[in-house]
Amino acid sequence: MKHIFYSLVLLLSLSACKENPSGEDGAMTSTPEKQRDSVQDFAIVIHGGAGTILKENMTDSLETAYEAKLTEAIQTGYKILQNGGTSLEAVQRTINVMENSPLFNSAKGAVFNHEGKNELDASIMDGKTLNAGAVAGVTNIKNPINLANEVMVNSEHVLLSGKGAEEFAEEQGLEIVDPSYFFTQKRYDALQRTLEQEKTAKKDTKTAFYDPFIKDDKYGTVGCVALDKNGNLAAGTSTGGMNNKRYNRIGDSPIIGAGTYANNKTCGVSSTGWGEYFMRGLVAYDISAMMEYGGKSLKEATDAVIQKKLTNMGGTGGIISLDNNGNVSMEFNTPGMYRAYMNDKGELQLGIYKELQK
Amino acid sequence: MKHIFYSLVLLLSLSACKENPSGEDGAMTSTPEKQRDSVQDFAIVIHGGAGTILKENMTDSLETAYEAKLTEAIQTGYKILQNGGTSLEAVQRTINVMENSPLFNSAKGAVFNHEGKNELDASIMDGKTLNAGAVAGVTNIKNPINLANEVMVNSEHVLLSGKGAEEFAEEQGLEIVDPSYFFTQKRYDALQRTLEQEKTAKKDTKTAFYDPFIKDDKYGTVGCVALDKNGNLAAGTSTGGMNNKRYNRIGDSPIIGAGTYANNKTCGVSSTGWGEYFMRGLVAYDISAMMEYGGKSLKEATDAVIQKKLTNMGGTGGIISLDNNGNVSMEFNTPGMYRAYMNDKGELQLGIYKELQK
Repeated sequence: MKHIFYSLVLLLSLSACKENPSGEDGAMTSTPEKQRDSVQDFAIVIHGGAGTILKENMTDSLETAYEAKLTEAIQTGYKILQNGGTSLEAVQRTINVMENSPLFNSAKGAVFNHEGKNELDASIMDGKTLNAGAVAGVTNIKNPINLANEVMVNSEHVLLSGKGAEEFAEEQGLEIVDPSYFFTQKRYDALQRTLEQEKTAKKDTKTAFYDPFIKDDKYGTVGCVALDKNGNLAAGTSTGGMNNKRYNRIGDSPIIGAGTYANNKTCGVSSTGWGEYFMRGLVAYDISAMMEYGGKSLKEATDAVIQKKLTNMGGTGGIISLDNNGNVSMEFNTPGMYRAYMNDKGELQLGIYKELQK
Repeated sequence: MKHIFYSLVLLLSLSACKENPSGEDGAMTSTPEKQRDSVQDFAIVIHGGAGTILKENMTDSLETAYEAKLTEAIQTGYKILQNGGTSLEAVQRTINVMENSPLFNSAKGAVFNHEGKNELDASIMDGKTLNAGAVAGVTNIKNPINLANEVMVNSEHVLLSGKGAEEFAEEQGLEIVDPSYFFTQKRYDALQRTLEQEKTAKKDTKTAFYDPFIKDDKYGTVGCVALDKNGNLAAGTSTGGMNNKRYNRIGDSPIIGAGTYANNKTCGVSSTGWGEYFMRGLVAYDISAMMEYGGKSLKEATDAVIQKKLTNMGGTGGIISLDNNGNVSMEFNTPGMYRAYMNDKGELQLGIYKELQK
């Protein structure tokens, strides 16, 4: 009876979905994927943040730099997967490449908080065991995604924060750097501009959050989802959070189910965008739940969650995701999202703006 | 087509469920609710923590004290709802009663962390707007649930932590107390016993977490879900976290979707238990998702999530919840959970152990 029930649900779901093509509400849709409904032996997808990324604001050399770094990052993970490595290893090493680059709002390139410090958040999840690890507000860990992994593997906790997380990192022998390592002139100047604007804005605790200039600085995160040859999904996310953030704000990146989720039954997801909306909407887990309980495909679920639910709430950003066959969805409702996907044949899809470049 | 599809899913789901009565897997089930499938004008449910709560370990006077405080708390919220107050107001004032009592691991009665300090976490969610607020690791806020509400109402953030959250609390004029306010001899003695045990245990960072004595101290949280006369659900949770916790660990209580969730479309939920499992399982949101996408009733969803999914993961604890008709589910897989429910007629259900007392 149970089997028949689920088969019927699936059949009905599929027929219902044909009448509801994605993007029906006229919401902005990302580029359709070339790979759909195929079965990949392994696959990997990354993002380097979503936001108001427009070609007219980008120099050729900067565009080339982003393309090169995204390609380097995804190839790092691809090689690990091709050689039979785990999705967890691929996710970490791929994110490390982006964490070590000043191009992305993550580790080396992290934005500054209101006090002129860099506070880093990261999380990782293992789709096989549903184990997870995360850190929030660390200031001296070179690669926060590696610390998130240590929390998952070597503690009984899921989320550690601040000084306590740093103490745990030292005990585990992670690479510690002086906080000045995270200084970049570009991010520092961005903070100074924001602080200058605040002085002239009317005194209102909400002002900083509504400023359209600052809004763009909300975005910027790096993330990776990988499927390995053993069929195990993993997902990870790492960020510097929000420029000029205060009050030890924690965003969605270290929150399992909001910024990161992986489950071999369904999919792996990493989010980037206006974190508060991703937390209220449980965006990463919501995609999985829609697949598991609602019988949706990855493409249908990501379209519904990003283009309809998130958009209707007023949230902006995007996700990268793989289902357990290696099908990809890179969905966002912003003008751009740094992103790349590689299938088991090593074919690359790479994009910054709405349309894919490669 | 869509309507027919969902009706069919619902019908099939109901028939399938008849063949799968709750508790089929032999998991421990909580007492069946007296109120089922009714429509309440308003309703309220609370918990004061789940764990190894056994009648043989309880004195009569302590039992009476718990019953009296649970009754006082739920009546506080009931009166607000009866007088047409909002579910958000009822949730806060009800939780305040438990926060101000040394009986529960929350605010006044909070457990101590490894350094002998009290670190408090709380969260609240509005089922009408899906707005939410939370705080983690605050040390001087008399009523953390009120601060969570301020974060929701007066900031653009969802989760603030540590010193930053305390700074925000001062700006908002919340009641600040000296950290010594949270000292209780019972909790201090519990920490000393744990520290003593650690000295004799073998050197292993995991030891503290696996100690069966400490496991019981993982539990203890307070929570409330309310439905008001306008049909709005709200949910809130407040806790001192885990005895002897280290590394600024953050548990499930301040995580939207794990410790707390509310959505007028489906239900409101507050969790209590071994937080890490509730975070990995997104327990509070999972119940809502199962109702929304899987067409389950509240009772079916809470049974599946607590008695099957959580239990199969190895997690322990429970939830209190209301659907948008005021139907209640108080589901747990531990020997006991402090809990109470009141319907719109003021009829009380109260329980500590597996069976309801009243």
